Amino acid sequence: MNAHMSIGQGFDAHHFSDDPSRELWMACLRWDGRGIEGDSDGDVAAHALIDALLSAAGLGDIGGLFGVGADSAGAGAHGAAMLERTAAHLHAHGWEPVSASVALVGNRPKVGPRRAEAQRAMSAAVGCPVSLTATTTDGMGFTGRGEGVAAIATALVEPID
Amino acid sequence: MNAHMSIGQGFDAHHFSDDPSRELWMACLRWDGRGIEGDSDGDVAAHALIDALLSAAGLGDIGGLFGVGADSAGAGAHGAAMLERTAAHLHAHGWEPVSASVALVGNRPKVGPRRAEAQRAMSAAVGCPVSLTATTTDGMGFTGRGEGVAAIATALVEPID
Amino acid sequence: MNAHMSIGQGFDAHHFSDDPSRELWMACLRWDGRGIEGDSDGDVAAHALIDALLSAAGLGDIGGLFGVGADSAGAGAHGAAMLERTAAHLHAHGWEPVSASVALVGNRPKVGPRRAEAQRAMSAAVGCPVSLTATTTDGMGFTGRGEGVAAIATALVEPID
Repeated sequence: MNAHMSIGQGFDAHHFSDDPSRELWMACLRWDGRGIEGDSDGDVAAHALIDALLSAAGLGDIGGLFGVGADSAGAGAHGAAMLERTAAHLHAHGWEPVSASVALVGNRPKVGPRRAEAQRAMSAAVGCPVSLTATTTDGMGFTGRGEGVAAIATALVEPID
Repeated sequence: MNAHMSIGQGFDAHHFSDDPSRELWMACLRWDGRGIEGDSDGDVAAHALIDALLSAAGLGDIGGLFGVGADSAGAGAHGAAMLERTAAHLHAHGWEPVSASVALVGNRPKVGPRRAEAQRAMSAAVGCPVSLTATTTDGMGFTGRGEGVAAIATALVEPID
Repeated sequence: MNAHMSIGQGFDAHHFSDDPSRELWMACLRWDGRGIEGDSDGDVAAHALIDALLSAAGLGDIGGLFGVGADSAGAGAHGAAMLERTAAHLHAHGWEPVSASVALVGNRPKVGPRRAEAQRAMSAAVGCPVSLTATTTDGMGFTGRGEGVAAIATALVEPID
């Protein structure tokens, strides 16, 4: 085993938006339906994955890399661009993503029919295989009531030789 | 290191059942007390683990493998049988489970006294060591109020030589 | 790859305390502000990490190692001491922590400015690199309302040669 293989955990949750013009972006894809609040596009799957990757590499978290608020580097940005920048940041610090996985928790969007497409988009942005699962909380809690959506992610990274 | 080692994240949550005749199944064991809703036996520990395994192998999630609803392949099924089928599905696609872990979140059942038994049952079904922890949310949220129970799981898999 | 490399998942959540004299401890550091309830210091980041480490090594969970309640071995203890004892327990059973990561979920404390300090403290206690991320739930759920705080952790361990 490579003694320097490293693991990361990430989490994110955002509120659905009341603005009907707000686009819904999730797992690096555009979906029909009500959008999600956030300085960036509100893509919690991408954001949880960014935290997992940064944490695995010991490089802080999304707030440290992109800043927070309307003036942040992530403001208005899409998940794919943020994941690409995250992967470049890992490479610049000598780390390579090996494998990652995101569990989306919420009522919408329905991932199944577009899972392969979402996984391709996330994998291309990160540069390693990224898998996506999705589940609900059976009507319970803020995800079950449809107030918002959450994502839990994990990632493996290794040092670049 | 095996460059193809892969990681998966899984999550599931289910409502406790109002039906007093409903059996409680969790972590591949039968417990005393109120059961959990679901098309299958409602075993969120098994279901979160299935998602972690499938995600690690890039094979979708539990809804894709077993379907959803009363006519699904998982309808009426127990967690152990579903885990065995999941492991067989991984093998058929060239993947072998290496290690997995489930964190159960909820007030019931009390896992401690039967942890070893539960771990043996899950490990036998998956074909690799599976560990189980359990905690509460201190009376907060839907798990704390006893509305339901949740599980977070992670798994490592590797390609079969 | 080392076939015996093992992964663990941990979770914990605690209520903020109403006792103004209660100190706030999180991620092995003392912070300003309202403390967290618990028999020990209420450090959910440390507790989730302990469960991830024990689960990865197949050694049960925090309740099994430290007991539960005011008479438990963890009563009054700080996260760093509990993590040190956990690491010693792993070593005594032939396991070595390789890498770990904690995702803190809640409104307080604000981790960013002291992330490096917290990571050093946790890494020193465990004996391997431990990373810490932090996020909120956008005002939703018990973490968003500021009732309590939660942590999700993952860890990799390997057998001692």
